[in-house]
Amino acid sequence: MQLIGVLKSPYVRRTAISLQMLGVAFEHRSLSTFDNEDEYRAINPALKAPTLVCDDGTVMLDSSLILQYAEAALSLRSLWPDNPAGLQRDFALVSMAMAACDKAVQYIYEVYRRPESAQLDSWRERVVQQSQGAFTELERQLQQNPQAVASDECQLSVTAAVVWQFVWEYAGELLQPLQCPGLEALSRRMESHPVFRQFSLSP
Amino acid sequence: MQLIGVLKSPYVRRTAISLQMLGVAFEHRSLSTFDNEDEYRAINPALKAPTLVCDDGTVMLDSSLILQYAEAALSLRSLWPDNPAGLQRDFALVSMAMAACDKAVQYIYEVYRRPESAQLDSWRERVVQQSQGAFTELERQLQQNPQAVASDECQLSVTAAVVWQFVWEYAGELLQPLQCPGLEALSRRMESHPVFRQFSLSP
Repeated sequence: MQLIGVLKSPYVRRTAISLQMLGVAFEHRSLSTFDNEDEYRAINPALKAPTLVCDDGTVMLDSSLILQYAEAALSLRSLWPDNPAGLQRDFALVSMAMAACDKAVQYIYEVYRRPESAQLDSWRERVVQQSQGAFTELERQLQQNPQAVASDECQLSVTAAVVWQFVWEYAGELLQPLQCPGLEALSRRMESHPVFRQFSLSP
Repeated sequence: MQLIGVLKSPYVRRTAISLQMLGVAFEHRSLSTFDNEDEYRAINPALKAPTLVCDDGTVMLDSSLILQYAEAALSLRSLWPDNPAGLQRDFALVSMAMAACDKAVQYIYEVYRRPESAQLDSWRERVVQQSQGAFTELERQLQQNPQAVASDECQLSVTAAVVWQFVWEYAGELLQPLQCPGLEALSRRMESHPVFRQFSLSP
């Protein structure tokens, strides 16, 4: 099985780290949907990362769907809690972290991938407010529930830490106005985990 | 429990229809992240649809994560196959349908939400090619596996039909150059399903 995409994509990185923690064997191929466009499109016509190529050639995409599939069919382990209250809390917080990430990616596309003449102030302001709103809410809830990220090998710890580090690296200006000591501490802790080091953001 | 968002969002619609098919009780509140921005933001600072507000006030978002949570904690049923081969096929096809949708949404944002002066031809062409590539691949696989959508109450039938109808309605120019008789027939069949009628795209 191959996981295709560059680790600077937080969607690729959370998938690689999660699969590794789930004990699913795979080979990581670092192809970019921008820099290796033709080669990527030949594998996946949607040109989207991450792409999982199964051993029989089946192509699957979307980090959340790949990880749901992996837990349903490829692994005996799970990175989600085993009780209703924990499930509700972690799905809420992971989805908030993903929203913070999605909106930061839209900001990065707006500001760093478009010429200034084709940028739109109102859109940039909207996605900044959305991303910062989501990070602020995530931090507030982690302050109230520090035990939610007590374990390293859980989907919430992985996703929140991957997302924070990604935004810090590529759009740090989004995070600088925020006060998020909980997310900062989680990020520092998780970046020293062997699997985070194996799939490191910095080459 | 409340599901918040307008049905013209394919992410809201697939969530509403799936929850209903799963037998999960909820009230649908039709608030738009654009037209009801302040009211929406007060519920969810990430300003993203769909938003599920649980009975204890917990806020969850992202259609795939909400549905994964619903199957894990709220329902005794599942809209996914119960065997490894079926799971692999359906996760591959659902993820391709979601990619076709995501890129169509990016096209709609580019062409219908930005003034012409702030549009970027190269970006529009990229997302058109991505969406059309994903729809073409989805159709090809449905031609090879028509039995994959034999059942109405499965995640693949729901998602593929919702996505097709959404793009047809709001960006039909993306689909007109394609030959997708399998998706067209699925869409016609599913739009006559009672739950699709209950959560109809046309008011």
